[in-house]
Amino acid sequence: MIHSGNAATKHHAAGGMRVLSFETSAKLQLASGEAVAPLTVAFETYGALNGARNNAVLVCHDILRDQFVASPNPVTGRPPWWARIVGAGRPIDTNRLFVICANVLGGAMGTTGPGSIAHDGRPYGLRFPQITIADTVRAQAMLVEALDIPGLFLVIGAGLGGMQALNWASAYPKRVFACATVASAPRQNAHNIAFSELGRQAIMADPDWRGGAYYSQGVRPAKGLAVARAGLHMASQAEPAVRRLFEAARVAQRFGFAIEQQQNFIDRLDANSFLYLSRAMDAFDLSADFGGRLANAFQGSATRHGVFAFSSDWRYPPEESRVIARALIAAGADAAYVEIDSDKGSDAYLGEEPAFEAALTGFIDGAAAARGIALQAGAG
Amino acid sequence: MIHSGNAATKHHAAGGMRVLSFETSAKLQLASGEAVAPLTVAFETYGALNGARNNAVLVCHDILRDQFVASPNPVTGRPPWWARIVGAGRPIDTNRLFVICANVLGGAMGTTGPGSIAHDGRPYGLRFPQITIADTVRAQAMLVEALDIPGLFLVIGAGLGGMQALNWASAYPKRVFACATVASAPRQNAHNIAFSELGRQAIMADPDWRGGAYYSQGVRPAKGLAVARAGLHMASQAEPAVRRLFEAARVAQRFGFAIEQQQNFIDRLDANSFLYLSRAMDAFDLSADFGGRLANAFQGSATRHGVFAFSSDWRYPPEESRVIARALIAAGADAAYVEIDSDKGSDAYLGEEPAFEAALTGFIDGAAAARGIALQAGAG
Repeated sequence: MIHSGNAATKHHAAGGMRVLSFETSAKLQLASGEAVAPLTVAFETYGALNGARNNAVLVCHDILRDQFVASPNPVTGRPPWWARIVGAGRPIDTNRLFVICANVLGGAMGTTGPGSIAHDGRPYGLRFPQITIADTVRAQAMLVEALDIPGLFLVIGAGLGGMQALNWASAYPKRVFACATVASAPRQNAHNIAFSELGRQAIMADPDWRGGAYYSQGVRPAKGLAVARAGLHMASQAEPAVRRLFEAARVAQRFGFAIEQQQNFIDRLDANSFLYLSRAMDAFDLSADFGGRLANAFQGSATRHGVFAFSSDWRYPPEESRVIARALIAAGADAAYVEIDSDKGSDAYLGEEPAFEAALTGFIDGAAAARGIALQAGAG
Repeated sequence: MIHSGNAATKHHAAGGMRVLSFETSAKLQLASGEAVAPLTVAFETYGALNGARNNAVLVCHDILRDQFVASPNPVTGRPPWWARIVGAGRPIDTNRLFVICANVLGGAMGTTGPGSIAHDGRPYGLRFPQITIADTVRAQAMLVEALDIPGLFLVIGAGLGGMQALNWASAYPKRVFACATVASAPRQNAHNIAFSELGRQAIMADPDWRGGAYYSQGVRPAKGLAVARAGLHMASQAEPAVRRLFEAARVAQRFGFAIEQQQNFIDRLDANSFLYLSRAMDAFDLSADFGGRLANAFQGSATRHGVFAFSSDWRYPPEESRVIARALIAAGADAAYVEIDSDKGSDAYLGEEPAFEAALTGFIDGAAAARGIALQAGAG
């Protein structure tokens, strides 16, 4: 069902993952002026592309996630992270939609990143160029083009994924029919920058980091990475959950690691990837490319926008989603802002949140009707 | 000028610091049920106690500070941290007030803490008992009693110091004439708990931490501590300053330590002290001892309260100071709430902030007039 229309690509399975390798000639040009070549993008798909090729959904994942949105991760054995939302009969209904989720540029689950092998046969490490959210989106656009998909029905993501979705809608307005930004922001706030920087410093302070060259030295900065991950984990919980976490640690032991450190959590995140991806997030400020006025990023766009926020989210507080919604409205765009009353913080999008699912379903169903997307023959 | 009226104390200078050592019999009883004995409290004083012994001010320091509020630290060589506020002709005017600042219990600048020598001749390390804000206040009360001061004219502090000031006013209402809480909160918020926990984990992840027993092993977890300190530093700046810090780091180098790491900053903070003090702050919730109603902590109190907040403070947002002010008013207490428009974040209290100085001066002058405190003969 997937046709790689681009002659400069190789589509194959590697280690339980589907990857698309672009030839060196199809290099990814970065905002920094550097380039990534060769580029490999690892991705998963669910459902089937219809004959009109107009039912493709791109799910953009957050920094702690990967492309295994609706199927178990064959490397870590982790269950799919968004099976509540993506699947047959779910809000992103694979009975009628074709879902693509690609490991982000700079990631560690098959897409080219700091752990990939460079021209000299050694892992990039810190020689990997600095990347931006726009770069990650450009890599995804190369994948979408290679899959011969002229336009996406929907781009959706939370956190880092939401930043990518916004950037998609801004960079390729004619190729994005609908855009759902979940628990995200048009610009990384100082609070998140501070958490990211602490995580980065904890990684770099770990003697097993070895200046980023740990890959070839049989070690990995697992403790520093655990601290970095703990920061994201805590920021993604609601305030009462953070208190409970802390209280449990305080009561159970005098001092020690409070945060769950399941090895598979650590394994699927690469320390250098954390450095690069968190820095890309910290530098994200969509309005900066538009004279400081966010609305300019969406001027004249026909994309249907859904902006979803959770009341107890203090990683990306609702006010930051409201900034997006206001800018969209100021740009004359079609924008629905949905604030879900939830006690689960930023991670609410991952769990059982019926009001979120209902609102997302309504948003997607309305867009699908407008796009004329029918159920696949034999599905439902 | 200082009379140690308690026979169970020894008052002497040690390493450029003034310390008061209590005999083992005068042990400090902790909230946990454990006790600290012997107890040593290191402190500095400025100005002179008047004949009525009613002009004493207790300054409580924040987690990154020490007792050298208005004189250089002889150990680190750092300049005084609050000379703008404490000194001749300053808001806390040493021409008429007698200022005491004690290194906090669990600290590392002379007062008993995890780096102190335990009964077996080895440093406590993690054998030091868990402490609370109330415990730190009780240790200060022992100092004040030993100095034969029946009641304090003013207790003042920011951050951890503000928590202590609030606890003083609640625990010893008749011994606190005025209380100034600056950039603090009645309860540690989840955001600060998360930052603290990251700092603690970074310390514990440092191989030189050695389970807290680094003192005797010729090492110290300097990198982990630097991460912990960076968290506090960032949280204490306003959002634009955090962005500038991050931007400078991003532009100047690909990856590396972004945060200033002056050795004397590190030297004056002990990693285990950070663990204990940050945990005491994280557990602080003044209302918890009063049936969950903060106003009950101040019921019937005659103390004059000043609550000072800074508009750009995201470590202790003004809203948390307003909670204090509302509780004080609900308790029928004398409460002035002052919100200073500042772009310097939580650290605004340390820098040039004329509106803060003017408001604090007014608060203190009014209280001094009510207390009948005159200028010392020959002063001014």
